[in-house]
Amino acid sequence: MTFKITGIPQSVCTLRVLEVLAEKGVTDFELYKPNMAAKEHKTKAHTDKQPFGVIPILEDDGFTLYESRAICRYLAIKYGSQGTPLVPVQDDNKGWALFEQFASVEATHFDAFANLICMQKVFNPMKGFPTDQGVLEFAIDGLIGKLAIFDVILGKQAYMGGENFSLIDIFYMPLTSLLFKAGNGDLIENLPNVNAWWQKVSTRESWQKVTQA
Amino acid sequence: MTFKITGIPQSVCTLRVLEVLAEKGVTDFELYKPNMAAKEHKTKAHTDKQPFGVIPILEDDGFTLYESRAICRYLAIKYGSQGTPLVPVQDDNKGWALFEQFASVEATHFDAFANLICMQKVFNPMKGFPTDQGVLEFAIDGLIGKLAIFDVILGKQAYMGGENFSLIDIFYMPLTSLLFKAGNGDLIENLPNVNAWWQKVSTRESWQKVTQA
Repeated sequence: MTFKITGIPQSVCTLRVLEVLAEKGVTDFELYKPNMAAKEHKTKAHTDKQPFGVIPILEDDGFTLYESRAICRYLAIKYGSQGTPLVPVQDDNKGWALFEQFASVEATHFDAFANLICMQKVFNPMKGFPTDQGVLEFAIDGLIGKLAIFDVILGKQAYMGGENFSLIDIFYMPLTSLLFKAGNGDLIENLPNVNAWWQKVSTRESWQKVTQA
Repeated sequence: MTFKITGIPQSVCTLRVLEVLAEKGVTDFELYKPNMAAKEHKTKAHTDKQPFGVIPILEDDGFTLYESRAICRYLAIKYGSQGTPLVPVQDDNKGWALFEQFASVEATHFDAFANLICMQKVFNPMKGFPTDQGVLEFAIDGLIGKLAIFDVILGKQAYMGGENFSLIDIFYMPLTSLLFKAGNGDLIENLPNVNAWWQKVSTRESWQKVTQA
């Protein structure tokens, strides 16, 4: 039995999952696209599976999972033996510890700010809500400070999770791409090592494929 | 050789690590308290180990690790055979997937907002920076919306990670405690299931011990 992903390819969080599947060469799954305009993701049928009323959701033979990073991890391990290796091998405790370190860096030092920027400049206008200029300025200032440190880290390692492309890079990619659409791509381009990383990961065949679908 | 934690017990992120060690019954470690007032955490010796210039840092026989949640995971696995079980067993793939789901819920739906509140109401005044009222109101509104959903989740499961106390609860505890110190404990107390969870976890012997140290 193949599995089902509920989500839309334009969504930051769904894109994370689709990029994992593209790197793994997995194509035999169902992508169910809920009617977001009709607020299908706010119906009881949806929130029974995803209480926050967002996407994506994974359903695999009776097992339901939400939160894109958790779904990405699950799929990276489920398809561990094929495509690009995206996580450390199972019993590499120190490898996993560093993976978790950089996973936490993404959530704490990047997503927390980049998400606020995209919320104010992309999602709010899309939903007809006003942009909160104060929150936007706070988030841009915060992200600038953090990205300067990312540039130091990426001066010492080739990818966000270490020397190899991994799930950690995929965690960053959709929101980094959206920063460009939000008109804040200069935050990435102004930093030589961050920009070099973005050029490397965003030109991957998998990413070209999922973002042009 | 015992390991070394660089951090201070009053710090949200150091407390996470100390609570894990208390639940595991680990006492043979060195707690090195950097001189935060003298900005020791901004010196090159510190940022060579922790590029963001914050605490805590773990050093274990030449292995250096930062980000509190990564350190907590590393220690929970290293001391897996003693004290309270805090993570799923190694080969339980679905157990880990749900663990990762709820770990991501903490980072995305709780920390992102609770941290902003504590930044504006506790850390900024401590550092002599002004409180940004706009950011504070945005964060409180956001957290109220999320906590209502946490109350639904905690109506169906006893703890933040499922039916048992786990690392996921520990991820929440220091910042939840600080919300009370920030004067926003009502956000927790107003929700019956969230409040019942907080009463359960905050009265644990381990937590009483590390917060009264």
